[in-house]
Amino acid sequence: MEVITEVDQMVEWVRECRAPRVLVPTMGALHEGHLSLCRAARDRAGEAGVVVATIFVNPTQFGPNEDLDAYPRQLAADLAACEAVGVDVVFAPQAGDVYASDASVSISEATLALGLCGGSRPGHFDGVCTVVAKLFNLTQPVAAVFGEKDYQQLAVIRRMVRDLNFPIEIVPGPTVREADGLAMSSRNAYLTPSQRQAAPGIQQAMVALREEIAAGKYEDSPSTAVEALEGRLEQVAGSESRVDYVALVHPDTLQPLESFWEDGELRYRLIVAVFVGKTRLIDNIGAN
Amino acid sequence: MEVITEVDQMVEWVRECRAPRVLVPTMGALHEGHLSLCRAARDRAGEAGVVVATIFVNPTQFGPNEDLDAYPRQLAADLAACEAVGVDVVFAPQAGDVYASDASVSISEATLALGLCGGSRPGHFDGVCTVVAKLFNLTQPVAAVFGEKDYQQLAVIRRMVRDLNFPIEIVPGPTVREADGLAMSSRNAYLTPSQRQAAPGIQQAMVALREEIAAGKYEDSPSTAVEALEGRLEQVAGSESRVDYVALVHPDTLQPLESFWEDGELRYRLIVAVFVGKTRLIDNIGAN
Repeated sequence: MEVITEVDQMVEWVRECRAPRVLVPTMGALHEGHLSLCRAARDRAGEAGVVVATIFVNPTQFGPNEDLDAYPRQLAADLAACEAVGVDVVFAPQAGDVYASDASVSISEATLALGLCGGSRPGHFDGVCTVVAKLFNLTQPVAAVFGEKDYQQLAVIRRMVRDLNFPIEIVPGPTVREADGLAMSSRNAYLTPSQRQAAPGIQQAMVALREEIAAGKYEDSPSTAVEALEGRLEQVAGSESRVDYVALVHPDTLQPLESFWEDGELRYRLIVAVFVGKTRLIDNIGAN
Repeated sequence: MEVITEVDQMVEWVRECRAPRVLVPTMGALHEGHLSLCRAARDRAGEAGVVVATIFVNPTQFGPNEDLDAYPRQLAADLAACEAVGVDVVFAPQAGDVYASDASVSISEATLALGLCGGSRPGHFDGVCTVVAKLFNLTQPVAAVFGEKDYQQLAVIRRMVRDLNFPIEIVPGPTVREADGLAMSSRNAYLTPSQRQAAPGIQQAMVALREEIAAGKYEDSPSTAVEALEGRLEQVAGSESRVDYVALVHPDTLQPLESFWEDGELRYRLIVAVFVGKTRLIDNIGAN
């Protein structure tokens, strides 16, 4: 496995590389969720292709009061994990090399990025789009793998690929969970033991709501279901939990749901963000 | 010469193309200025490479009260002209094929694009950046040629290429002028005969100012020189002329000039936009 730490080196490597590349962009602190994306990339690349994982904690997607400085960094462990799952190249640049000090170009998505995490984190998806476009141009992959855990991000990236005509296939990877159901996240490391114990309650409440919706408890009133879940999530870690948002949205448009049903089938995405202490956790599930 | 009119067809063509491509993005209504860019692309591509010219009147770079509908269209003549200068492929898509009806992604440049034409035409350079990024992704060139006539556009595109890490060399092409000095522009076709006769006065006044600056007439006061030129350009076509802006700027940063001199040499760009009747003409020259 090759490790590239400089932008110029990456450009040079890509220029020489004849094999099709499959990209897995990450912010490092890799867990089983990331590794499942690397395995999906390995499958997609096949024997002829190469898997490029990037490890870069992108400053432009963090707000001024967010956890950029605290975000976990563990490059040595990440490299070992990448090698073990068949990554061919890791690109792990420094922020000052990725962004010029007078950088002035950014990419915005004006529809899908507005609500949900985009509402809570102004500018977040501009930073995501911009860095992903940069990584696309630096690595020129035929495909790139993004986790469904960041459901809105996946939708925004798909839209960017469509609207800017990037010749890149976007491959989604399903959310990987701990044995107790908590969605894997690098931010889980921030949780105290008691918070960690309470956190699986988020997914349990979501799954319970899904079952209630299927059983007709909320008839066809998504807003009633949202309110019910908000109430439960506020309690999930006692006084330590605070709901950032709960949303039942159309899985493609991310617009608020008016009906649970489409063409005779249950069809929606349930997306939540909940603070447990100071840690903001996100999760989402589909109707089925 | 191949003519491609559909986005999917262009994607397919690029996928099959093994030769390095050099791109010349245009809005059609080709004149000698465009053709000089095509020749520069032909030189840059060499025998092994192919020249791709695009002809697309991009709606997103026109303001609501601008000349999108009136902009001259002459595809048959443009294709003949392209063929004559050695273009290999013309990509001439329809707007509805280039932009999805719910397109929501755009690219902004926040420094170089603010003043000058960006000040007079809000959103113009967002539209330019977005369509150029799309054309870059659709054609994946090794190099792209842009005219110096649109000096600010050239600077903004260079910045976008740098900040988004497009692996594309930007090749500038010098402004081509009519025998009487008027900068070639598709918009010159809007001028009445008397306006056309007066229009070369723009460049004459610019060149005269440059000579005065070199002779020390304005000592080291760019603002005084700007005022002098504004006065002359207001008169260039009698009551039919109106200055949009006159700017003496640093050639790289496009920031207002504080001194004509840098490292012992005259160094600036003089950039103007002047309405002659309803037609907005732009031009620019350097210190030498």
